[in-house]
Amino acid sequence: MATSEGNKLWGGRFVGDIDPIMEKFNASIAYDQRMWDADVRGSKAYVKALERAKLVSTDEMNQILHGMDQISEEWSKGVFVIKPGDEDVHTANERRLKELIGSPAGKLHTGRSRNDQVVTDMRLWLRDAITTLTENALQLVSTMVERAAVEIDVLFPGYTHMQRAQPIRWSHWILSHAVALSRDVDRLQEIKKRVNVLPLGSGAIAGTPFNIDRELLQKELAFEDISLNSMDATGQRDFVAEFLFWASLCVTHLSKMAEDLLLYSTKEFSFITLSDAYSTGSSLMPQKKNADSLELIRSKAGRVFGRCSGFMMTMKGLPSTYNKDLQEDKEAMFDCFDTVHAVLQVTSGVMSTLQINQSVMEAALSPDMLATDLAYYLVRKGMPFREAHGVSGKAVFMAESKNVTLNHLTVEDLSALSQE
Amino acid sequence: MATSEGNKLWGGRFVGDIDPIMEKFNASIAYDQRMWDADVRGSKAYVKALERAKLVSTDEMNQILHGMDQISEEWSKGVFVIKPGDEDVHTANERRLKELIGSPAGKLHTGRSRNDQVVTDMRLWLRDAITTLTENALQLVSTMVERAAVEIDVLFPGYTHMQRAQPIRWSHWILSHAVALSRDVDRLQEIKKRVNVLPLGSGAIAGTPFNIDRELLQKELAFEDISLNSMDATGQRDFVAEFLFWASLCVTHLSKMAEDLLLYSTKEFSFITLSDAYSTGSSLMPQKKNADSLELIRSKAGRVFGRCSGFMMTMKGLPSTYNKDLQEDKEAMFDCFDTVHAVLQVTSGVMSTLQINQSVMEAALSPDMLATDLAYYLVRKGMPFREAHGVSGKAVFMAESKNVTLNHLTVEDLSALSQE
Amino acid sequence: MATSEGNKLWGGRFVGDIDPIMEKFNASIAYDQRMWDADVRGSKAYVKALERAKLVSTDEMNQILHGMDQISEEWSKGVFVIKPGDEDVHTANERRLKELIGSPAGKLHTGRSRNDQVVTDMRLWLRDAITTLTENALQLVSTMVERAAVEIDVLFPGYTHMQRAQPIRWSHWILSHAVALSRDVDRLQEIKKRVNVLPLGSGAIAGTPFNIDRELLQKELAFEDISLNSMDATGQRDFVAEFLFWASLCVTHLSKMAEDLLLYSTKEFSFITLSDAYSTGSSLMPQKKNADSLELIRSKAGRVFGRCSGFMMTMKGLPSTYNKDLQEDKEAMFDCFDTVHAVLQVTSGVMSTLQINQSVMEAALSPDMLATDLAYYLVRKGMPFREAHGVSGKAVFMAESKNVTLNHLTVEDLSALSQE
Amino acid sequence: MATSEGNKLWGGRFVGDIDPIMEKFNASIAYDQRMWDADVRGSKAYVKALERAKLVSTDEMNQILHGMDQISEEWSKGVFVIKPGDEDVHTANERRLKELIGSPAGKLHTGRSRNDQVVTDMRLWLRDAITTLTENALQLVSTMVERAAVEIDVLFPGYTHMQRAQPIRWSHWILSHAVALSRDVDRLQEIKKRVNVLPLGSGAIAGTPFNIDRELLQKELAFEDISLNSMDATGQRDFVAEFLFWASLCVTHLSKMAEDLLLYSTKEFSFITLSDAYSTGSSLMPQKKNADSLELIRSKAGRVFGRCSGFMMTMKGLPSTYNKDLQEDKEAMFDCFDTVHAVLQVTSGVMSTLQINQSVMEAALSPDMLATDLAYYLVRKGMPFREAHGVSGKAVFMAESKNVTLNHLTVEDLSALSQE
Repeated sequence: MATSEGNKLWGGRFVGDIDPIMEKFNASIAYDQRMWDADVRGSKAYVKALERAKLVSTDEMNQILHGMDQISEEWSKGVFVIKPGDEDVHTANERRLKELIGSPAGKLHTGRSRNDQVVTDMRLWLRDAITTLTENALQLVSTMVERAAVEIDVLFPGYTHMQRAQPIRWSHWILSHAVALSRDVDRLQEIKKRVNVLPLGSGAIAGTPFNIDRELLQKELAFEDISLNSMDATGQRDFVAEFLFWASLCVTHLSKMAEDLLLYSTKEFSFITLSDAYSTGSSLMPQKKNADSLELIRSKAGRVFGRCSGFMMTMKGLPSTYNKDLQEDKEAMFDCFDTVHAVLQVTSGVMSTLQINQSVMEAALSPDMLATDLAYYLVRKGMPFREAHGVSGKAVFMAESKNVTLNHLTVEDLSALSQE
Repeated sequence: MATSEGNKLWGGRFVGDIDPIMEKFNASIAYDQRMWDADVRGSKAYVKALERAKLVSTDEMNQILHGMDQISEEWSKGVFVIKPGDEDVHTANERRLKELIGSPAGKLHTGRSRNDQVVTDMRLWLRDAITTLTENALQLVSTMVERAAVEIDVLFPGYTHMQRAQPIRWSHWILSHAVALSRDVDRLQEIKKRVNVLPLGSGAIAGTPFNIDRELLQKELAFEDISLNSMDATGQRDFVAEFLFWASLCVTHLSKMAEDLLLYSTKEFSFITLSDAYSTGSSLMPQKKNADSLELIRSKAGRVFGRCSGFMMTMKGLPSTYNKDLQEDKEAMFDCFDTVHAVLQVTSGVMSTLQINQSVMEAALSPDMLATDLAYYLVRKGMPFREAHGVSGKAVFMAESKNVTLNHLTVEDLSALSQE
Repeated sequence: MATSEGNKLWGGRFVGDIDPIMEKFNASIAYDQRMWDADVRGSKAYVKALERAKLVSTDEMNQILHGMDQISEEWSKGVFVIKPGDEDVHTANERRLKELIGSPAGKLHTGRSRNDQVVTDMRLWLRDAITTLTENALQLVSTMVERAAVEIDVLFPGYTHMQRAQPIRWSHWILSHAVALSRDVDRLQEIKKRVNVLPLGSGAIAGTPFNIDRELLQKELAFEDISLNSMDATGQRDFVAEFLFWASLCVTHLSKMAEDLLLYSTKEFSFITLSDAYSTGSSLMPQKKNADSLELIRSKAGRVFGRCSGFMMTMKGLPSTYNKDLQEDKEAMFDCFDTVHAVLQVTSGVMSTLQINQSVMEAALSPDMLATDLAYYLVRKGMPFREAHGVSGKAVFMAESKNVTLNHLTVEDLSALSQE
Repeated sequence: MATSEGNKLWGGRFVGDIDPIMEKFNASIAYDQRMWDADVRGSKAYVKALERAKLVSTDEMNQILHGMDQISEEWSKGVFVIKPGDEDVHTANERRLKELIGSPAGKLHTGRSRNDQVVTDMRLWLRDAITTLTENALQLVSTMVERAAVEIDVLFPGYTHMQRAQPIRWSHWILSHAVALSRDVDRLQEIKKRVNVLPLGSGAIAGTPFNIDRELLQKELAFEDISLNSMDATGQRDFVAEFLFWASLCVTHLSKMAEDLLLYSTKEFSFITLSDAYSTGSSLMPQKKNADSLELIRSKAGRVFGRCSGFMMTMKGLPSTYNKDLQEDKEAMFDCFDTVHAVLQVTSGVMSTLQINQSVMEAALSPDMLATDLAYYLVRKGMPFREAHGVSGKAVFMAESKNVTLNHLTVEDLSALSQE
């Protein structure tokens, strides 16, 4: 059965040697071009190792280094031209290098595979991204800490189950979220350690038979460690997955804070007022001011976890080593970075500009919130807590019946209760 | 505490009246411009209802209709200019209309909210998308059916648990996947019915007090039905969620087919050979031909379900009616459409061009696959199946011990077994 | 290399012929015993087909039917004894049948595989489960509709973005959720159609060579349709997946309603009071009444979708036909049923017993909610909506500045605004 | 509107003061009884702090300690009786303590809330669970390392894209998975650090006004650290979420290994044979031996991630502090532990007992796998790699055309190619 026949036999979409939809489906240049800088750095380091291994001459190395610098300049100036056939940033850079320096370009790939090249680029890129996110998160934490210090004397109701529970400090609330975020910062540093590992030298699967000095590569690219197993290094993406989950957990934390703030900014609570920069109006209702920023923060927890979820599913049951399925790693990684990057900054903006309505907050400290303290008072008088809890509960009920607040019950009322 | 002070108090990122990161975070024009045509159609229908309700004059209506046509032409020619401040396609079109026809443009929004406008546009867009996907899926099914008919006489091993089980027809395998896909087509039609419902006239939440003729709108926009409740119509996105899940299920079906084909195209199975248009080579290993198309199809099940997962999480616990969180609906919808659209076409291409290696397939029909038939033979002779199953199992073992194939056991061998 | 050696070579956990952890890992009887009734019904139908095909005698059929009835009675009385080695309900029933009637039991499995037996049982079980859930959902809808009718005259604020938007009827809010639920009911009927299909007769993968009358089976088991392809029938679980997603969407809808009600039951909103049957107290704070029922409803959206998510991931990239991975289908299906079954009933309980605080609701209709109506008033006077929206917005601002409510602005105020 | 009327007004399910479905929906005793030991330990430590704070006398403390020991013994002997009303293990233990020692039992809860009690128990339980899983994982790693050492000289094909790529060592494959697992072990230790933090003393939300010595509690319960913020300590569950994700990543790694082994155990690859302890037969096909253990391992990645996914969704957008929604944490945690616990042990069993078929493995090293080495040979002769890659590719094609293997091309053939 000849191919030419085969192509026509079963009626489907016509395909010749090339199916343009497949080409587009296969290409990653639209998004992986973001890694151009990492790709250039990786190639520059690699050619140095090739030269040390005498696989390129010093002169060839210099030509390649010079060419890569020129490519770098083109990208950074926004004049690099992507051509048909450049399916990814690595191909594009290699094609351009050949145009610039000719034949020696063909030596750059010696003993290097797309498999170890891609994952090196991703690790370089993600390492930088983690540094940025760490700064963003720390800035948010420090904004929150500063605010907590300034407003340390403000009291308002603490809620559990969305019901008023006990009086707390506003700063206690702020710091409860800052503490959670600081764990996120800790986690991110642990992940960075695992990201910051050199895979280059792993080849496609089996390493390289050439005398590539991986310690030189490590030093050139400032990696903290060197991968141990070439199949693992090219085929596993747990460093991506754990980053995606980190992002999910971080934004889930922020979705909780956003939900609190959304409640507090309802007319009914009126504890806070968002700055105009973080609110929008309604196209229909002139009186409205919507806390869009908080809603967006809340929503992004879903988006980011969706990426994590999608990539975990893609990895499930995949055989060892590189399979094209792994191409899904990059868009997920970029999108999670972009989202968390924006979310952290917007949250900092929201937190540093919102106004609190202290008098409303304090007015909300209704006397029934003292019921626990009443129980504790009775405990101090020697009553077992479970009993004191019961008495205090009856006091709340009595106060409601008498239509007074808890603190207006008389001594007689209370002693009557505790003798029941 | 004045806002100006507030902005600087807690050290965070500086923000004035506008935070550019928030602006970008908030804007959807980058992706929702895809709905320009739906937006134009929706507005044209709406102005007709306004005219009938005497909220615009016939002349104003005509100006608006003419303006919208011009906008439509600009979009379709790719010359529509997005300006700063155009946060979404609706704002952009409204801004442009005002530039084109001046004051009457301000009447188009009478009694219409962004909330009902957006969801109308989405439903129009998705209805068309569903039509396209239905065609893609049916083309794939028909490619498969045609191929099954042509190759109906080819036999090969059927596998369960990835182990050879019983001889089956190759066409039986093809049709097993076509049947699953045809259920996906059925499901999509059911979803379409629920997508194809007019929400316009729901306002922001409470409907409209004007005499907007919703049956006119329905007819103009060819909706099958009219939404019943304005809060539901503007605030629920189950029509999006079920589309996302549909896409997930469909690609999960295809991931199964792709996995089979990936197995069949290993050197070890060698049942099929993909067309070059759907394979790629290796950057390092000259002898390789990788079935990238199949790996991409398999991987997309994760991507698509990730979108579904993310959007479900975004919707979880959201209060009624429109919240900005819902803005996550569009990118998920577009990405799932684009992915399934490509996957279905690439799968059609793969299925219509792959070559089968019939002799290899038939050679794989090893005699031990007849063990069930041997058991059935004994059943026909009157032995209870459970016993026949045991005897046949022993025959397989005996054949292995004697180093012959099952069909070369002698009558004596078999009768010895059944008398044990 | 002998097995005995192999077992000891690499130090791991000792394993002999049997690894008890593997046994437990493999067994499903702990949960699939729920399907005992479906299994009995399936076997009773199957033996009738065997008799018609002359694979069992009429006498043997009657013995088997009688034995199965006895097994059924044992299960329904709770006296069926599961024995070691009963790895699933099918094995258990078959083992028991043999104990009860001896040798003819061995004929029941003729031409039937565990693969088509399991999926038949699941479809029978799920069909009944769907009937139950349909009733639960309809009862909830009807509770809501009745309540809406009784309380049709109660007004309260409609919210968008959690901010007061426009006055609406309380019944409008109720019905907005009832309408969403009724779409869920529609979806469930569509799924039922696809569940209600007979797979029996598909064998392990390749059908059966015996003359099994599938129309007889269909009739006996009251299936609406007969599966078309044996590989598809035994290896696909889209009917389970779509049920899991249905459950997710339904509970996500209810999580939205629960979130609204949680807001409305805060001290700050105080629109509703839950019945004590659906609230609990605090172990520490005597004054508290928590709306636990609503929180549980809200939380279950995550649980149920987690099941869907897990099963989709399990199915991703699985080869055709039955693989043991599919064993994950049943716990997911049971858990989603149980959860939705409880959620729907608890929601009915909540909705039929909560008290509304009408005066609080109406007091919350603050005058600024009339801003849209003011704009509409100006539109009726001939002002383009966009302009009227602006004027009305200024009026809100003016009222705030003057510290009066919107309805207390004077005619002079308003005409001043519209002439600016 | 009286409650009694309200209960009947809207037709729904009848509910009196108690709705049995709600009771069951609310209760967690069915699963949280697993934490009985942690609960006892937590209470024993707490009573010591109460004594130090003079909230109970030494005698009362001793009664409570003694009572808790008795409770512990009842649980460990399996004779603890759960009574109606015991909604969770904490209530059950408290109720039992009261039965055993009477009134002093009521003092144990002084200043402690269910909120800090539950999370203390969970952290104690999970800390132990992590120790167990660490041992399981390390045992698996060591099984793999030992096996790799013994079989270090076995060669077989390394695959990328499921296609034969380059010859590798079998031990290289084993270690590629061991290396991934050892990262999982590292991650688990990081998580343990964050789990191993004392929350007790946080009360319901606002800490405790009593002089509870948290350092005493820390020491008694051997926690590494003390929580910083009471709202965070009682309301955040990131320690659970990250454990669930850890479990997901770990099983996803194993799903990859299982997929490889499933491929290798097909008839077509025939590289390995599973021990009978980890295989099962077919109910229909006597000749079959299915690698059920591997399929189950592969499937569990979905199950476990489903739990993670579900819990993340439950947490999304939840307000601060304890909400009943968090009750979903325990079943997810238990199920993930149980699953990973079984998966790791079964994998150890599989890996220590499988047989390799060395001759088949080596026979699969087809000569075309030397194409990269041929290219490298040419590189060493001075040809740029890209060119050498091309020549080697042509050699593969030439060998195919001549129907010889790559290593049988003549010197003339090769020089002809390199001069083209």
